[in-house]
Amino acid sequence: MIDNNLYQLHKELRSLLGTRFITDRTVRETHATDASYHKGSIPDAVVFPKSNAEVSKIVKCCDKYKIPIIPYGTGTGVEGAVVCIEDALCVSLNEMNEIISVSTEDRYATVQSGVTRNQLNAHLTEIGTRLHFPVDPGADASLGGMAATRASGTCAVLYGTMLDNVLGLTVITTDGTEIQTGGKAIKSAAGYDLTRLFIGSEGTLGIITEITLKLARLPETISAAICSFHTVNDAINTVINFMNAGIEIARIELLDEIQMDAVNNYSNLDYEVAPTLFLEFHGSTNTVTEYSEDADRIASENGSVDFRWTTDENERKRLWQARYDSYFAALNLRPGSVGYVTDVCVPISQLAMCITETKSILVKSNLLATMLGHVGDGNFHVVFPLEPGNSDELDEAQQISNQIVDIALEMGGTCTGEHGIGLGKRAALQKEHGNAVDIMRTIKLALDPKNIMNPGKIFI
Amino acid sequence: MIDNNLYQLHKELRSLLGTRFITDRTVRETHATDASYHKGSIPDAVVFPKSNAEVSKIVKCCDKYKIPIIPYGTGTGVEGAVVCIEDALCVSLNEMNEIISVSTEDRYATVQSGVTRNQLNAHLTEIGTRLHFPVDPGADASLGGMAATRASGTCAVLYGTMLDNVLGLTVITTDGTEIQTGGKAIKSAAGYDLTRLFIGSEGTLGIITEITLKLARLPETISAAICSFHTVNDAINTVINFMNAGIEIARIELLDEIQMDAVNNYSNLDYEVAPTLFLEFHGSTNTVTEYSEDADRIASENGSVDFRWTTDENERKRLWQARYDSYFAALNLRPGSVGYVTDVCVPISQLAMCITETKSILVKSNLLATMLGHVGDGNFHVVFPLEPGNSDELDEAQQISNQIVDIALEMGGTCTGEHGIGLGKRAALQKEHGNAVDIMRTIKLALDPKNIMNPGKIFI
Repeated sequence: MIDNNLYQLHKELRSLLGTRFITDRTVRETHATDASYHKGSIPDAVVFPKSNAEVSKIVKCCDKYKIPIIPYGTGTGVEGAVVCIEDALCVSLNEMNEIISVSTEDRYATVQSGVTRNQLNAHLTEIGTRLHFPVDPGADASLGGMAATRASGTCAVLYGTMLDNVLGLTVITTDGTEIQTGGKAIKSAAGYDLTRLFIGSEGTLGIITEITLKLARLPETISAAICSFHTVNDAINTVINFMNAGIEIARIELLDEIQMDAVNNYSNLDYEVAPTLFLEFHGSTNTVTEYSEDADRIASENGSVDFRWTTDENERKRLWQARYDSYFAALNLRPGSVGYVTDVCVPISQLAMCITETKSILVKSNLLATMLGHVGDGNFHVVFPLEPGNSDELDEAQQISNQIVDIALEMGGTCTGEHGIGLGKRAALQKEHGNAVDIMRTIKLALDPKNIMNPGKIFI
Repeated sequence: MIDNNLYQLHKELRSLLGTRFITDRTVRETHATDASYHKGSIPDAVVFPKSNAEVSKIVKCCDKYKIPIIPYGTGTGVEGAVVCIEDALCVSLNEMNEIISVSTEDRYATVQSGVTRNQLNAHLTEIGTRLHFPVDPGADASLGGMAATRASGTCAVLYGTMLDNVLGLTVITTDGTEIQTGGKAIKSAAGYDLTRLFIGSEGTLGIITEITLKLARLPETISAAICSFHTVNDAINTVINFMNAGIEIARIELLDEIQMDAVNNYSNLDYEVAPTLFLEFHGSTNTVTEYSEDADRIASENGSVDFRWTTDENERKRLWQARYDSYFAALNLRPGSVGYVTDVCVPISQLAMCITETKSILVKSNLLATMLGHVGDGNFHVVFPLEPGNSDELDEAQQISNQIVDIALEMGGTCTGEHGIGLGKRAALQKEHGNAVDIMRTIKLALDPKNIMNPGKIFI
C-alpha cells in the first residue's frame, strides 16, 4: 500500500515540480540527517518548492497519501530534528530564498524561509540600510530553520532569541492550508499566539514558509574584549557583576581551558590556557568605551589575568577568532572525530555550580570534552569529539549528557537552551515538563491528526 | 439537568471552600462583568480559592458537572473577557495573592496570579531590591489577568509586553491537571511554547495560577517631558525621528487636542489644547539628560510648541498628571457617562495616516470621542463617553470601532494592540486572521473538549 501511495505521490510531485523533484541518490543522501551523530534513513525523494502554493500542493499530496514530510532548512541542527525516517519525503526550503520586502521605517524584513541570516544581513548592507538581523546561532542557518527550532546563539543576551524577533509567519498547515500568524504591528492581543506556537515546534505542526523578522539598528561602534581567569567561578561571577552593574553586553562567551588549548593549537594562537570570557559591546562610541572600562575594572576585581579590548574591526575579528573556530578546534583535538554536542541552560545564579558539577563528571570520564557557552544567558555546551562509529563512546556521551540535564533540571534549568528536542532530548523533555508534554501532544494530535508532519520528533 | 448539576457542584464547592464559596448577591453582581459596556449574567456563585490544589479541585468539579468557569482577576479589562454567562461559576483569583519568591540575582519573581502589579512593585521596594516589574497597563490589574490577556501599556516600548516578561506559568488545565510551562532559565528550546500559548488565551484554555515574571533593574534616573504640536502628524513624525536617532524612551504617549481639553478641565491645568506627547526616559543621569536634550531638539525640528522636562519626582508626577487622569477626564466631558474604549495597533510608519483617517470618521460622528495612544508601539485608543443604556450611541460607537479596525487591518495592523478579543473583537479577529482562527479553534477544542473554560470568548 505504502509503495503504491509512494508511487502515486512521486508521480504527482514530478508533474508539479519537474526538475525540482529529485531522486538522485547523492542529493537524497545529503538530506538524510543534520550536523549531529543522529542517523537517518535516506529520503525517497527531495523536493525544492519555490512558493507557498507549491508547498501547499506538496503537503496536500502527502496528506492524501499519508506520506510523512521532513521539512529541511540547512541541516545545521544538532539534535536530529530533520533526521529522515523511512518512506518520508524531504521538503527542502532551500530554493525559497527570496527576500520579499524590507521596511527601514518599521524595521522589519519579510523573507522566504530558505533565506539564511548571512544572506539577509548582506542584503541589508547592500541596499544601504543601517539595520541588521541580530540572532546569531553561529552556523549560517536558514531563517525558517531558526524559527522552527527557536534558535538563539551568541547575541541573545542583548537582542533575544527567535522567540523575541519574529513578528509573524506564513505557515502551511498539515492539510495544506496557508495561514498567516502575527502580522506587522509591533504588538497584538488578537487571539492565541500561533507565531510563538510554531516557533520551536521543529516542523511538527506545519511548514514555515515566510517570516517577518524584527530588525535592529546597527550599532555605531562595536568593541570586543577577552579576558581569562583562574577559575570558571571567577569568570561567571564577573558576568553576574557585569549584569548587576547594568553593563549591556551584546555577546558574553565562556570557553573553558581545554577549549582554549584546542583553539591555540588549531589557530596557532597563544592565549592563556584558562577559562576565558569573550565579550562584545554594541552602542555609541562613548557608551562602548565606558562599558569596556567598567568591564575591565570588574574583571580585575574578580582576578582576571589579562583584559584586551579593541574597537578596530580587524583586530576585533582576530581577538574573537578563538571563539569562531571553537567547534572545529574541538574536533581537531582528535583528527577525524565526529562531534557530539549537548546544551543546557540554568538561572545565572546556578551557572557556576552547574558548570563545576558538569566538569567533575567530565574529568571522571574517558572521553575528551570541551565546554563553551553563552554564559550571559546561563546557557552552555559540551562538545565531545567522538570516534565515528564507536558506539561505546556514543553511549558514554549520551549518558553524560543525561547527567548534565539532570543537574540543570535540579537547579531550575532546562534540558536545552537552544538546540531543541529533535530526537536527542525527547526523554529529557518528558523529565523536564512531565504532564505539560501531554498538552503539547494533544496539540500535535489535534493539528496533525494523520501524524505526517515530521513524525517521531519532540515526542517519545 | 443543569439545575441538579449546579446543586451538586455548589454542595461540593461549599464543602471544599467554606466561606470562600459565596452566593451573596452583591458579591455575585460585582463579578458579572468587567470595566466595559458588555453586560453579563450574574454568576450563580463566586469562589475564592487560595491554592493550586483548590483551583484544581474546583475545575475537576466543574468538569464533572459540565459547568462553565469564568476565571476572574480584577475585572479591569475592557473587551468583555470575564463577562459571565448563565449557569457559570466565577473563579476569582483575588485571594491567590501571595508573592512566592523573589530572586534578586536572577531577577525574577514567582507570584500567585491574584497579586497585582502595584503589590509586587511595593514588595520589591519593601524588601530592598533595586528591581521593578515594568509592564504597566494603567489599572492596578492582577498579574494573572495581565498574563491571560497579554497586557501591555505605557512601558511596552522599552520593556515589552507580558509576552516578553514571563518566564513560566503554573496552569490548571481544563480537566484539573496542574502543569508547569517554561521555567526559571532565561531561555529554553524545550518543546512547544505553552507559556506564550496561555498568555493571551483569555482564560479559554485553563486557569493561570502562578507566574514567574522577569524583573528589570530600576533606572538610576527617570526624567519626564511633555511637548505639544500643531498636528498629530508632527507629533508622530517626532516619535519616528526619536526612534531612528536611537533615543531609548520608556514611555511615549500621545493625547489628542480633545483629550488635552478634557484633562485641562478635569484637573484644572493649562496645557496647550493641541496634540501632545508625554515622554519618560529611564537610564543613567547622563544618558537621560542626553536623551532629553536630543528629544527636545528633534521635537523643535518638527515644530513643537513647547518642551518641558524634569527629573524631579514630584514635578514629574505633576507633568504627567494629564496622562494619568486621561480616562476619567474623558468621561468627565459628559458627567454620568460610561466609557466605550477601542484600540488598534499598526506599523509605526502607518500610524499618522491611521489616526488621521480615524479622526476624519470621528468628526463626522455625533459622538464625543477622545484619542490617546502608546504611539511608540503604533497603538492607540479611542474613548467614547456614552450615555448609559443608550443603544443608538452604543451601536454607533461599535460601528466606528469596526471602521477603525478595518483601517488598521488595511495598513497591516491588528484589531487590538492590547485590549484583547473577549466578546467585543470576535468578528474583528476573524477578519484579521481568517483561517488561522480555525487553527486557534482546533486548539481550543482539543484542550477544552467540554467547552467549560470561559466559553464564548475569543471565538464567534
